[in-house]
Amino acid sequence: MHAPLPPPSLPTPKAIRVNTRGAVILAEESPETRDSRGIYLPNYIEPVSHIAIDIGGSLAKVVYFTRSPQSSSSPSVVATQGSSPSGKSFSTSSADSPSGSPPNATCPIPCSSSQTRNGTLTPRVLESHYNGNGHSNGRDHYPPDTPDSLDTDLLHSTILKRSTEVRHIPGGSINFERFETSNISALVAFISELITRSAAANGVSIEEMRRGVKISATGGGAHRFGKLFEGELVVDVQREDEMECLIEGMKFMVTIPEEVYYFSDELIQEVTHHISRDVQNEIVSDGPATSGNATPSTSAEPVLERPSPDPPRYAVTFETSEPSAHLPCLLVNIGSGVSIIKVDADGSFERVSGTSLGGGTLWGLLSLLTPARTFDEMLALSEKGDNASVDMLVGDIYGTDYSKLGLKSTMIASSFGKVFRSRGEAKDEGERGTFRAEDISRSLLYAVSNNIGQIAYMNAEKYGLDRIYFGGFFIRGHAATVATLSYAIRFWSKGTKRALFFRHEGFLGSIGAWIKNIDVEETPISVLPS
Amino acid sequence: MHAPLPPPSLPTPKAIRVNTRGAVILAEESPETRDSRGIYLPNYIEPVSHIAIDIGGSLAKVVYFTRSPQSSSSPSVVATQGSSPSGKSFSTSSADSPSGSPPNATCPIPCSSSQTRNGTLTPRVLESHYNGNGHSNGRDHYPPDTPDSLDTDLLHSTILKRSTEVRHIPGGSINFERFETSNISALVAFISELITRSAAANGVSIEEMRRGVKISATGGGAHRFGKLFEGELVVDVQREDEMECLIEGMKFMVTIPEEVYYFSDELIQEVTHHISRDVQNEIVSDGPATSGNATPSTSAEPVLERPSPDPPRYAVTFETSEPSAHLPCLLVNIGSGVSIIKVDADGSFERVSGTSLGGGTLWGLLSLLTPARTFDEMLALSEKGDNASVDMLVGDIYGTDYSKLGLKSTMIASSFGKVFRSRGEAKDEGERGTFRAEDISRSLLYAVSNNIGQIAYMNAEKYGLDRIYFGGFFIRGHAATVATLSYAIRFWSKGTKRALFFRHEGFLGSIGAWIKNIDVEETPISVLPS
Repeated sequence: MHAPLPPPSLPTPKAIRVNTRGAVILAEESPETRDSRGIYLPNYIEPVSHIAIDIGGSLAKVVYFTRSPQSSSSPSVVATQGSSPSGKSFSTSSADSPSGSPPNATCPIPCSSSQTRNGTLTPRVLESHYNGNGHSNGRDHYPPDTPDSLDTDLLHSTILKRSTEVRHIPGGSINFERFETSNISALVAFISELITRSAAANGVSIEEMRRGVKISATGGGAHRFGKLFEGELVVDVQREDEMECLIEGMKFMVTIPEEVYYFSDELIQEVTHHISRDVQNEIVSDGPATSGNATPSTSAEPVLERPSPDPPRYAVTFETSEPSAHLPCLLVNIGSGVSIIKVDADGSFERVSGTSLGGGTLWGLLSLLTPARTFDEMLALSEKGDNASVDMLVGDIYGTDYSKLGLKSTMIASSFGKVFRSRGEAKDEGERGTFRAEDISRSLLYAVSNNIGQIAYMNAEKYGLDRIYFGGFFIRGHAATVATLSYAIRFWSKGTKRALFFRHEGFLGSIGAWIKNIDVEETPISVLPS
Repeated sequence: MHAPLPPPSLPTPKAIRVNTRGAVILAEESPETRDSRGIYLPNYIEPVSHIAIDIGGSLAKVVYFTRSPQSSSSPSVVATQGSSPSGKSFSTSSADSPSGSPPNATCPIPCSSSQTRNGTLTPRVLESHYNGNGHSNGRDHYPPDTPDSLDTDLLHSTILKRSTEVRHIPGGSINFERFETSNISALVAFISELITRSAAANGVSIEEMRRGVKISATGGGAHRFGKLFEGELVVDVQREDEMECLIEGMKFMVTIPEEVYYFSDELIQEVTHHISRDVQNEIVSDGPATSGNATPSTSAEPVLERPSPDPPRYAVTFETSEPSAHLPCLLVNIGSGVSIIKVDADGSFERVSGTSLGGGTLWGLLSLLTPARTFDEMLALSEKGDNASVDMLVGDIYGTDYSKLGLKSTMIASSFGKVFRSRGEAKDEGERGTFRAEDISRSLLYAVSNNIGQIAYMNAEKYGLDRIYFGGFFIRGHAATVATLSYAIRFWSKGTKRALFFRHEGFLGSIGAWIKNIDVEETPISVLPS
């Protein structure tokens, strides 16, 4: 069932069928689920029963829509609590363990392999079959997800907060879950449970429920795992082109308020120097650097030209442009590897470049070099590190700035450039391993992030694009990553281009696969023979 | 004595004062000195006594000119035999130990920290002082270096051979040596010995010899170590701009026959598939790949467009263009870090880009991840490796090609992308470390080389340059490195740009510093007060 890919075609501009007016991003208690907050859509009341899955090299991302009988928290939080069918437990941190990474977590990438306890699918086909039969599947019988508050605490303490209360409004929620691709059975069990629960809630048999459910699969694994889903879940699987889904997902997400954000110049510096305060270390590898001072106003260095005349100081800034203003742009999707996609003003797109140095490279090397077992543990390590102990800085070579070339002494000349020299001086094997995991983590995070930023910039320049969107699970809303990518774009473009980010950074492909099938949902679903 | 850098200025076109007619590259017995073969100049008979040193982040490269009383081998071979003043021994492999890397070598980067036993400096100032005094410093009293044969065995068995005999011709040799920057005392001892020996050969006191010797220092360390040289060696030190020296060195080296080479398309494939024959693995990370077959003529794949209509098959090809034909070009110097320099047709230049992911990154990470202690050991490991065991290939994700995007299943989607997944599946610490050092070495060599090739290509495209020269010690004439860089340029440029290499790849800066001071040599040297 490795279906041949459809022939190349430009995507047709597609009207978004989901009413996002009044959409709010739900609260999450755990940093591990900060990118998978549910999105509450108070004005979207259509029944939706398809499940979108984006299966990448490392992670499978799931998107589905529920109108939930429970209301105390968003589905994603619940989804990450409890035990998975595979026996792996994965608890989120609670209020009294705010560190974020549960010490006993065995899931190397933060993921939910548990089962959502609340929220069910509402297939249109069942609604039309059973309405008036006494089964409570009418929309007014379903209290919507009712989040207690909006939590915009995307990046710890650095961002805007507000406390809008949204209670008892009809609608439903888009839910986001992720699983390891290597543990696909957990994903299958999750969906199986969702179907079983939905069947019970809709008062129909599981077989009937299955006929009302469809899986939209995208990403590389859509081809590898499509047959598995069809066989084990007994549901129709429709495969969607990966790049089309990324673009559709991006176009949908820019309609969600407080979804797209960027770092102000001041925040980039603030984050950079807060984390690496011992060494006033620039986060770009090469070329002229801006002032290393945290307070640019007191610096003698010239102020760098900015993307906007007056960006907000010390703030995550949410993009409030009209959705149409986001195009044309460059979309850089950083998963295990990196895809770079040029998107034109009319929504047509082309994958123009990429690099194999992506999230998989960082995770893979750090899993060899540090004791960290999860990606968030690696990011936590990097926050405590000082890359100057492993990186060769300009000052290490020149003893000073190389001012003729505008290279400041604090800039990275060679990532990991100090390691070999030091190792060479060691007399025996026992002297190896003198580098701190924290420093190694930080150095590699810088190296990968900055390299992606550099290649992204060069493509944006080549195609004359000023807006560079970064998506993909690599980012994790991690301040140092966002700041490094932002700094690289700002530096190389001399402030003329802007790096933009999504709060649901890892779900662009899956939300795109979900949106693409909203249209199809309008008609009854035909069930494939299993 | 950290002299301020001179103000930025365009270099003035400089006439090369060294007669390179009939120049030949001398034989070397050891792979470790394959990039530091002496260059014999039969028609250059001027006395030259200055020593050029290019001090980078990891290595210090030395160039000097001798008219040697011995003739059995080139100075570089002798220089790598014997013991260094620091107590480190470093023997080259002999005919009966052809493996290349001596097992007991403690010098992590192949370098000569020993003392050249033959070859002396011939200061013009001494010649004018002592001519006719009975001291045998007349040119006809100095038999030149007389190599037994020319060895163009640059890349093992893959290249052209010939057996021209060059004996008993007057002239002299340019000598190349390298030292670790972290062991600068070995370099000081080497030069001190050279001065002492030259003083004896010229029949003058050491003090007088010192007044006839000058050091031209470039590279980052010229500033850090300049005062050290002046103090310990009691010689004049002149600092030269690093980028100017690189360009001058390149302009000189293109005048040396059989110095500049490139890989034919067929050789790139041959090398790639010879080394990684188990997995027909492409060496580019991204974008459409050419056929994975070692015999392109039998392949059904379309033949890739080529830089020239009919490149030689299965051969290293020496560039035979006139020196003027080399400009304009892009020069990519890969040392610990990477500098990318645009060189215009008139010789003016600008450092336009760079990356911190260079040789220092490869060496540093591999010294943490493998038991290799020297760079050549790392390269030897990589030759036996299969990166498919650690890299996530397109086929690992998609199960097949992603033909819509032209991504072949054998291409690298994520460098080290399999490691994290596998590590996540391991039950405990004991299962860590299941990756072979050979495979890790190969993956990282690919990742760094291909990334440099990609960034180099993008700069060449930006500035409309078709010739991309790679220099720097990273390359080491290593077939996989040369093939990867060549493939990346060929792939990204769709065959319109060519990657070119130097046999003395690591010495561009030092030869440039040497050449720049040939003019000054014409006039008596003024000695600085020490």
